[in-house]
Amino acid sequence: MKAVLIIADGMADRPVKELGWKTPLEFARKPSLNHIAETGICGILDPIAPGIPPGSDTATLALLGYDAPKIYSGRGALEALGSNVKILPGDVALRCNFATVSQNQAVLDRRAGRIENKDSQKLAESLSKVKLKTSDARFLFKSTIQHRAVLVLRGSRLSAKVSDSDPGITGEKVMEAKPLDGSPEAKLTAKIVNTLMHEFHKNLTSHTINEERIKRGLPPANMVLCRGAGTLPNVKSLVHIYGIKAACVAATPLVKGVCKAVGMKAINVPGATGTLQTDYLAKARATSQALRSSNFVLLHVKATDVASHDGKVRQKVEAIEKLDDILSYFIDHIDLNSVYLAVTADHTTSSATGNHEGDPVPIAITGPQVRRDSVKEYDERSCAGGGLHRIRGMDLMPILMNLLGKTSKFGA
Amino acid sequence: MKAVLIIADGMADRPVKELGWKTPLEFARKPSLNHIAETGICGILDPIAPGIPPGSDTATLALLGYDAPKIYSGRGALEALGSNVKILPGDVALRCNFATVSQNQAVLDRRAGRIENKDSQKLAESLSKVKLKTSDARFLFKSTIQHRAVLVLRGSRLSAKVSDSDPGITGEKVMEAKPLDGSPEAKLTAKIVNTLMHEFHKNLTSHTINEERIKRGLPPANMVLCRGAGTLPNVKSLVHIYGIKAACVAATPLVKGVCKAVGMKAINVPGATGTLQTDYLAKARATSQALRSSNFVLLHVKATDVASHDGKVRQKVEAIEKLDDILSYFIDHIDLNSVYLAVTADHTTSSATGNHEGDPVPIAITGPQVRRDSVKEYDERSCAGGGLHRIRGMDLMPILMNLLGKTSKFGA
Repeated sequence: MKAVLIIADGMADRPVKELGWKTPLEFARKPSLNHIAETGICGILDPIAPGIPPGSDTATLALLGYDAPKIYSGRGALEALGSNVKILPGDVALRCNFATVSQNQAVLDRRAGRIENKDSQKLAESLSKVKLKTSDARFLFKSTIQHRAVLVLRGSRLSAKVSDSDPGITGEKVMEAKPLDGSPEAKLTAKIVNTLMHEFHKNLTSHTINEERIKRGLPPANMVLCRGAGTLPNVKSLVHIYGIKAACVAATPLVKGVCKAVGMKAINVPGATGTLQTDYLAKARATSQALRSSNFVLLHVKATDVASHDGKVRQKVEAIEKLDDILSYFIDHIDLNSVYLAVTADHTTSSATGNHEGDPVPIAITGPQVRRDSVKEYDERSCAGGGLHRIRGMDLMPILMNLLGKTSKFGA
Repeated sequence: MKAVLIIADGMADRPVKELGWKTPLEFARKPSLNHIAETGICGILDPIAPGIPPGSDTATLALLGYDAPKIYSGRGALEALGSNVKILPGDVALRCNFATVSQNQAVLDRRAGRIENKDSQKLAESLSKVKLKTSDARFLFKSTIQHRAVLVLRGSRLSAKVSDSDPGITGEKVMEAKPLDGSPEAKLTAKIVNTLMHEFHKNLTSHTINEERIKRGLPPANMVLCRGAGTLPNVKSLVHIYGIKAACVAATPLVKGVCKAVGMKAINVPGATGTLQTDYLAKARATSQALRSSNFVLLHVKATDVASHDGKVRQKVEAIEKLDDILSYFIDHIDLNSVYLAVTADHTTSSATGNHEGDPVPIAITGPQVRRDSVKEYDERSCAGGGLHRIRGMDLMPILMNLLGKTSKFGA
């Protein structure tokens, strides 16, 4: 027995006026999703807890069976890991942006004109040679895609409890990283981050690449902004807990990082972009293929969330209908006598507010041994009437692993 | 967006023979409650946990989002706060009764013939002059209404872990306060309470007011009985947690005290008495008015509980029908496009046993963004079929605050 868990990012929603007070899921044409609901057991699921809006990182950790409020340790290390930057336990990693700032440190462009890889990579190489005048830590600075980069601090007396230097908004001034608790480790880490940001700024301001960019009429990448300091969560891997081989098909670095952090193999799919234009079928095929060598495959689709953050309800409906094509591929190409399919979302994203919200998400599990219920449609309200009732995110993995015969008895 | 939470004390019940095995809620005429159920999302709610009968204090703490089993610290300080007695963090407060006892300290009347305010206030003034021969604590003794009074102990080495001196039953002897754990603080506090009770008894026995009472044929208030030692719960306020302005409309001192302890403004409503004769409409108007300057208003109605403790089923039905009038006022006077209404009870009170019981209570939330379900009637069994399923008391506040956009994302 094997299982595929399909997580559609932010797919769940609240009733939308534009759709006659239906949710995008209720409105969409989705025969395959409905087929899974009809042949399966359904319910609603609070990724973290009722009313709590989760991030994609905490929700995915929960859906993989972990107690997120206990073990979550920031996004930085997860995102770095997902961007193929090597992270060791104890490393403090921060997500960075190349940015453009004015002389008085006001942020003019948080993405330095979405600087191209060839420029950002050269700048990163140069920054990685900056000398850090302390024996307390070493650092690694790597550019990933365009303006995105990662800063990794390695040392024995560091802490991820430091605030962001990235103000998050254009026009605001760059902030100082500050310790978020009273520990000497947080104080030291904040100091190191601030020193590095200062040195980076000096280096970048006089860099030939930036001089050229200015000549070409492009905004100079004269600052590095950082945010989301984090360490790897201290958890046992899925291999260790369930004795399974697990893989993930995901384009979003943060989600990929979560999967890698719990011992899953991340499969790269050319054409999987994390956008509405992603190659859905390529992802479906990759999932189906990964199933040959894994007991458990997580397929993550990002497009549903992108559309809702932008408040584009029709685009969200379209993304759901494309997800339905993936499910249709699975129904046709996977032997559902030996594979369980579970479909859910990592959180509700409201098309009205554009935010992650705390409402529960639908969940349906189909496969040979489930207690099929009377639910016939896959959406927030229909699934609420199903046999799973209302469960928590961290309940899902034990349920799936039990169906796979991978849980051990508690007691005699 | 704003929200009103209506808590009807002990409104939920079990099926009652006298009503053809319907519950009072199922039996009552309640078009407005039904309207809220029909336009909203419904469910059942365990104030604390399944099977656990809560007090109104612990249940209200839970319904306000607090982990009551962790933070509850006795009723004494809450009730004192609700009676407008000033309480500081660390103060140990006890609820007191002026009572009548026989020469051998058997309780003859736990309320000293429901002594009038003018008598009890003079007695309390006199008692507050009693000298406490220790530097370990100071005390404050205040009468509130009729036989009710509050004893506050202030000192740095005190504990609320002391037992009651009030036996709770007529005919029983007054008890010694005893330390409830092995701490020197509990031992000291019990000693101080016993010393005070002894001194109070001496003072009262020879008091002219009591001599006059005996002449008038009234039972003398010759003893103070105390119970429910408590400190203020050590919690962050709602302002701090959600950044909201919150107010409460409640007549019951205990509930008022809970609300004040978590940073809510208590609004005094002339005519709100906490009894069946309470001015329901005055409370509805006060709530509606409070909504102008607050994001969140709690309206507490006590009459439903009073009726059930007395086993008066028809009176409970009547109290529910009067509550329905309040809801009708809200439906007419509040803009439900920008205000969420949530209606629940703090616990089940069985008309048959007269006790708080551990059965869940119904909950319905109506407002612009809820996932409306198919429930059409507001009662214990109809709501159990709703889209909220079965939640815990402490889940409600995150759900409401999320609808108001007042929760922050956990993760990235």
